[in-house]
Amino acid sequence: MTVGFYLGDRLRAFNVGHIFGVPGDYVLGLMDELINSPVELVCTCNELNAGYAADAYGRMRGMGAVCVTYGVGAFSLINAVVGAYAERVPLVVISGAPSRANRRSHLMLHHTTGDLNLQYKILEKATVMAVVINDVNQATQQIDQALAACAHYRRPVYIEIPTDIAQQPCPVSAAPPAFAETLTDVDACAEAVQEAIALLSQAKSPVILAGVEFHRFDLEDKLLKLLEIMGFPIATTLLGKSCIAETHSQFIGTYVGALSRQAVHETVEKADCVLCLGAIMSDMNLGVYTAKLEEQRLINANSEKVKIKHHYYQPVYLGDFLDELCQQWHNSPRQNLDIIPAASLLSEPLTPTAEQKLTNAYFYKRLNHFLTEMTDPQLVISDTGDAIVATMDLIMPQAAEFIGQAFYLSIGYSIPACLGASLAATERRVIAIVGDGAFQMTVQELSTIIRHRLHPIIFLMNNDGYTIERVIQDNVYNDLQPWKYHQLPQVFGDCWSCEVRTETELETALEKACHHLSSPTFIEVHLDRFDCSQGLKRLGAALKSMNSH
Amino acid sequence: MTVGFYLGDRLRAFNVGHIFGVPGDYVLGLMDELINSPVELVCTCNELNAGYAADAYGRMRGMGAVCVTYGVGAFSLINAVVGAYAERVPLVVISGAPSRANRRSHLMLHHTTGDLNLQYKILEKATVMAVVINDVNQATQQIDQALAACAHYRRPVYIEIPTDIAQQPCPVSAAPPAFAETLTDVDACAEAVQEAIALLSQAKSPVILAGVEFHRFDLEDKLLKLLEIMGFPIATTLLGKSCIAETHSQFIGTYVGALSRQAVHETVEKADCVLCLGAIMSDMNLGVYTAKLEEQRLINANSEKVKIKHHYYQPVYLGDFLDELCQQWHNSPRQNLDIIPAASLLSEPLTPTAEQKLTNAYFYKRLNHFLTEMTDPQLVISDTGDAIVATMDLIMPQAAEFIGQAFYLSIGYSIPACLGASLAATERRVIAIVGDGAFQMTVQELSTIIRHRLHPIIFLMNNDGYTIERVIQDNVYNDLQPWKYHQLPQVFGDCWSCEVRTETELETALEKACHHLSSPTFIEVHLDRFDCSQGLKRLGAALKSMNSH
Repeated sequence: MTVGFYLGDRLRAFNVGHIFGVPGDYVLGLMDELINSPVELVCTCNELNAGYAADAYGRMRGMGAVCVTYGVGAFSLINAVVGAYAERVPLVVISGAPSRANRRSHLMLHHTTGDLNLQYKILEKATVMAVVINDVNQATQQIDQALAACAHYRRPVYIEIPTDIAQQPCPVSAAPPAFAETLTDVDACAEAVQEAIALLSQAKSPVILAGVEFHRFDLEDKLLKLLEIMGFPIATTLLGKSCIAETHSQFIGTYVGALSRQAVHETVEKADCVLCLGAIMSDMNLGVYTAKLEEQRLINANSEKVKIKHHYYQPVYLGDFLDELCQQWHNSPRQNLDIIPAASLLSEPLTPTAEQKLTNAYFYKRLNHFLTEMTDPQLVISDTGDAIVATMDLIMPQAAEFIGQAFYLSIGYSIPACLGASLAATERRVIAIVGDGAFQMTVQELSTIIRHRLHPIIFLMNNDGYTIERVIQDNVYNDLQPWKYHQLPQVFGDCWSCEVRTETELETALEKACHHLSSPTFIEVHLDRFDCSQGLKRLGAALKSMNSH
Repeated sequence: MTVGFYLGDRLRAFNVGHIFGVPGDYVLGLMDELINSPVELVCTCNELNAGYAADAYGRMRGMGAVCVTYGVGAFSLINAVVGAYAERVPLVVISGAPSRANRRSHLMLHHTTGDLNLQYKILEKATVMAVVINDVNQATQQIDQALAACAHYRRPVYIEIPTDIAQQPCPVSAAPPAFAETLTDVDACAEAVQEAIALLSQAKSPVILAGVEFHRFDLEDKLLKLLEIMGFPIATTLLGKSCIAETHSQFIGTYVGALSRQAVHETVEKADCVLCLGAIMSDMNLGVYTAKLEEQRLINANSEKVKIKHHYYQPVYLGDFLDELCQQWHNSPRQNLDIIPAASLLSEPLTPTAEQKLTNAYFYKRLNHFLTEMTDPQLVISDTGDAIVATMDLIMPQAAEFIGQAFYLSIGYSIPACLGASLAATERRVIAIVGDGAFQMTVQELSTIIRHRLHPIIFLMNNDGYTIERVIQDNVYNDLQPWKYHQLPQVFGDCWSCEVRTETELETALEKACHHLSSPTFIEVHLDRFDCSQGLKRLGAALKSMNSH
């Protein structure tokens, strides 16, 4: 068993079946070992894209991994690592490195500045654990600790392996180490639950707001149980979207402060008690600080602590808090709360009109019906820009999932993420929605999607520029070179593509897309330059006011 | 005068006419100011490409600048900054940032992890000076100091400007600060020159090896003078290539250790005294440590010090050392040295054969004749891979320049660099040579080259994979999705493109390219999978042996 093989083997045990990466001379030996191991190496066109793909894979599988060469490779990847850190994605960053002999000789090595600590010093700041394997006898222990930290904190870790170490045999201990258990202070948890129950029992208009940690820590079942016994309405944050089936009768919609639909906005902000669970309190999740969630009426529990009004119970892990809350809740489910299920919006019928030019509003309504018509479970990925804002109001069918960088908001995430997610969740039909500006950032990874004969449906929303920024502040920097987007996939390989401008053209394309499984489907949707979602208009106004003071 | 305008104005004084960047909400106000200032904002498809473009611009103009948004923007750029640091490129990295009010409130802001010092802490490690402008009264001084440091050290600097600062008026002092002068220890310099002259006078087979600092510190004239008064043969490193006209009768070729042509290799390694000037002693410059340059016969002068055998004279600036050396050299130029000028190789005639399949060897020979036939001065850019290795033996005509990342070797550099260099040196015809793997990394910037109606000639060398790595170690990771490369430019816009497989097809393409100035020319050159330069075969063997121990 070599060091490289061991790494692949352990990753496989963490549900990692694919590693994304780009070859380079400091990592070829390691890649040879990984290829021999139970994981599959998927090469992307560049390293940033490998990072995004592994991030999306990690969101779906509970862990993702990326493997690159030293210097040029790892430094190209930093933005994906920081994004994963921000959004709590378990991402294992693996880098080859110069041999120990070359390190010691202080040579000026290619792909470096001459400082052979620079990479470690930078990656160490963007990960929860960073290790350099310099001794084969410690290799398995270091690898096990790093993977355990990644799984525990749901955040990136960094593993650096010199060329002369990767292919060496390493001693393997009998049993891999157990992972650190989350330590909840049982008494603190009990008191927090007691206080929460007192507040929730008295509340006249309580609401649950659920966030991303249900995805990350696999706590969806506990949330469902809580909903049933309490009977409260529930909204999710944008990053937490799809952590419950949005056809659930208590689900009222996605809450993003003033950007949300009015009914969602009012239910959350007029509630006399908000039970906020597993959410990152970010500006975007809170509608760019248009959210009005006074702490006076807030119970806020996450993977580390519970905060009620202005005091904390700590350490209390979200899962333990939910278990205790369910166990101690003896009231009957509330019946008298006036809940308008989000799913009721879907009942509006929609009939395409021949020759009618497509609008943003029509497109997303039609897409929502399309989602409910499909038989396979779906995975929707939206890129930063109007796509992610408009997605807010999509109602995800039972078993559908959503991923997007709803807090870090790096544009260009969706195409590489579409690659990663398609390989992670082969049972799902992946649907990616990407604006023209975002698409230009990372376009080459469409080629890797084609190469692996995956079959996502990609909607390229062509509205001629960075629309999200036109709304905030318009100038020449929001213009883009107008590509013939729908002609691009054929240059890369086998892909079905078309462009649509009217409601009936969209209809024809959707019908074909639904049954086309032999290659990706790429649909260029033409929209007017300033035609965007209602949410985006509100976002633009909010950002503009935030940045001006 | 606002802070943003002042920055643009001062950059213009440093010969920066274009700033490369990508918009984002933390930088829109700053960009508005820059657009009003005397510099032109050139938006690229993504940030890494903006960094590469600005790097190439900086190599041509003496300073380059890139402007991005906070977090997602700056973190996507790191690899370009580290590359510029490694290769001593004066690059000004400008980032927008959250307003001071938002910073103080410890909000979880989008595009960040919540840690608002992370970006500064990382950029600070990859630059020679990093400043955050938090006070308009100090803005001009901080900007002036950062730009002076960039110019002085020829390395990247970082300037961070919060949204609420960028558009504020700032007090401007009457005179901008003078730049720090390089302090040479005059006595040390005199003694170093004396010792060097003693060694060089006695040498039977001396040779000059010149490196990148002649480009960076504009010392080409001093080198030419030295050559004339000494009469020695001269070779350059790969990074220093084109620092003298390669048609010069004393120029023998590019020296890259055992990778070089045999005549160059032998002249340098059998010399009894090597006068090494302004070179980075990197593994690649030294032929991946196949170079045999024993310190016993080495005089090594650079921008900081002179080292003779095993002792140092410091601080001694290269320019001062050269001046003193020229002044104290009273011998007549050597006549008895048996110099074979590199240019003599060009006299071999070359006749295309109809239907003859193109080979790597024929292509580069033909390219070299093509360069000498052109009337405009050229700028050749080679990407990492076989392109940069094969370029080693091109003989650059009088007034032609070469740029490439010959030390840091980040693949994908050339297409964005082609954008930057074309805007920096409008008087030159830019010729870029890029492999298929490198092209896939940063393909989107071809669209920006098209958008700005530039007219470089781009040779896409299609040999079906990462050939440089196939030579080192071959496995599935060296395969690429086979794009229809020559069909791609039309998807992006107006560009003339074709594909060539034979010597006569190449002939037709070159003829058309020569006169085609209304848009870029894109020529896909089909080569056999393992057909590569002699230098690459030697590099592969050397790297393989280096990494295995």
